[in-house]
Amino acid sequence: MQAPEALRAHIEGYLAGLSLAPELGEQRDSVRYALARGKRVRAQICLATAEACGGTVEEALPAAAALELVQAFSLVHDDLPALDNDAERRGQPSVWARFGEPVAILAGDALLAEAFRQASSYDTAAVVRELAEATLGMIGGQYLDITGGDVDLAELHRLKTGRLFAASVGLGLWAADLPEGDQGPWRAFAEELGPLFQIVDDVLDGDGYAAQLGDAAARGLAAQAAGRAAERLGAIDADTSVLRLLVDELATRTA
Amino acid sequence: MQAPEALRAHIEGYLAGLSLAPELGEQRDSVRYALARGKRVRAQICLATAEACGGTVEEALPAAAALELVQAFSLVHDDLPALDNDAERRGQPSVWARFGEPVAILAGDALLAEAFRQASSYDTAAVVRELAEATLGMIGGQYLDITGGDVDLAELHRLKTGRLFAASVGLGLWAADLPEGDQGPWRAFAEELGPLFQIVDDVLDGDGYAAQLGDAAARGLAAQAAGRAAERLGAIDADTSVLRLLVDELATRTA
Repeated sequence: MQAPEALRAHIEGYLAGLSLAPELGEQRDSVRYALARGKRVRAQICLATAEACGGTVEEALPAAAALELVQAFSLVHDDLPALDNDAERRGQPSVWARFGEPVAILAGDALLAEAFRQASSYDTAAVVRELAEATLGMIGGQYLDITGGDVDLAELHRLKTGRLFAASVGLGLWAADLPEGDQGPWRAFAEELGPLFQIVDDVLDGDGYAAQLGDAAARGLAAQAAGRAAERLGAIDADTSVLRLLVDELATRTA
Repeated sequence: MQAPEALRAHIEGYLAGLSLAPELGEQRDSVRYALARGKRVRAQICLATAEACGGTVEEALPAAAALELVQAFSLVHDDLPALDNDAERRGQPSVWARFGEPVAILAGDALLAEAFRQASSYDTAAVVRELAEATLGMIGGQYLDITGGDVDLAELHRLKTGRLFAASVGLGLWAADLPEGDQGPWRAFAEELGPLFQIVDDVLDGDGYAAQLGDAAARGLAAQAAGRAAERLGAIDADTSVLRLLVDELATRTA
């Protein structure tokens, strides 16, 4: 079992060496820029899941990269002036602010297509199917977010954040060839990750749940979500110690 | 062998009955709008190829739909104000003109993700891989188009138009399970379709090749491309009569 930091190093190395489609030409600069930074928590979860259920990090790397590519795609498009209009991302100019809006639209498209190219490196089409469905859920969540009104916050986050977190576990299972019939307990665990991530996010940003319920109550919710995730990990008959560390990191992160 | 019009009816029926991801919610309206009209020539080529090499129309329909979804994705994003700024498409408001820019960006994303969901219905990941690579080529072509300058027109069209036409044949081959070693002659034919389509497009629009070489010379180029496509079809040991009809339609179309 490799520790979270080792898993992170693996995915950073893989992403840094990723050979993007040559036909993208100079468009690749914006794609690499979008992909250059990130917490890589989805990739870590995918790799840790694959190892915990008997697979190897190596065979799960394309799936983990596909998850990071989809995440990067969603950030690039969400940041666009027509959507969230964010000129900054992680303390740097967002892709449209750096490369212009036309290139940013195409960069998001390219990240999504590259994600499916990575996902197609498996014999089973299940990796592609689960990634496509998670992506569609995310898009549905972003649609709810921008069309707004009286939206159920839990449903919005289940789509916008939760679907890709759940797929992070799911892709790890497929990459490790765990039969579908054995996936149940892992998927029950996976469902807890999105809420955990989002509640902590809201506490850190002072919006969402923190704005709606107050800081203390939101922290309480986060602790409950972490507790449920740990409990569901405990119900899995495997060494899930690295996933447990990742849950703790999600619960206690400060950025 | 089903005639081109019958193939078109098959794909129209399949697309009309397509069950989009429910989590897209009302975003599905814009996706359906984007998908509602089209010549469906890529789908027809895919279905005709599958039949000609021993497969069935039914097994090729998801691949054909995936091609139309990618084509629709590219039109929705290309029409955006930041890219080609086209408020009309096929005599109707383009997606952004009808639904607004934010929804149009997400509609394009959803079309692309749905394309890969369709492509994931095959046992082989080759369908997804070829579709992803063609999509990346298209994006590279659109990048060349918007960043402009002294671009080689043939290279631009090879990417922006040719890649998806070539994949229309390729996906038909995979859908029919034609072994890779037997695909060569089909793929040689496939390479001729993009230039044929694009030159005729330029003649009809009075731009591109028609503007560069004059109308008569461009028509001459189109006739040459059609001749090469027919010649390469003739080199395939199969009943390619329906593909021959489709080539003739591409060469003589008036819209």
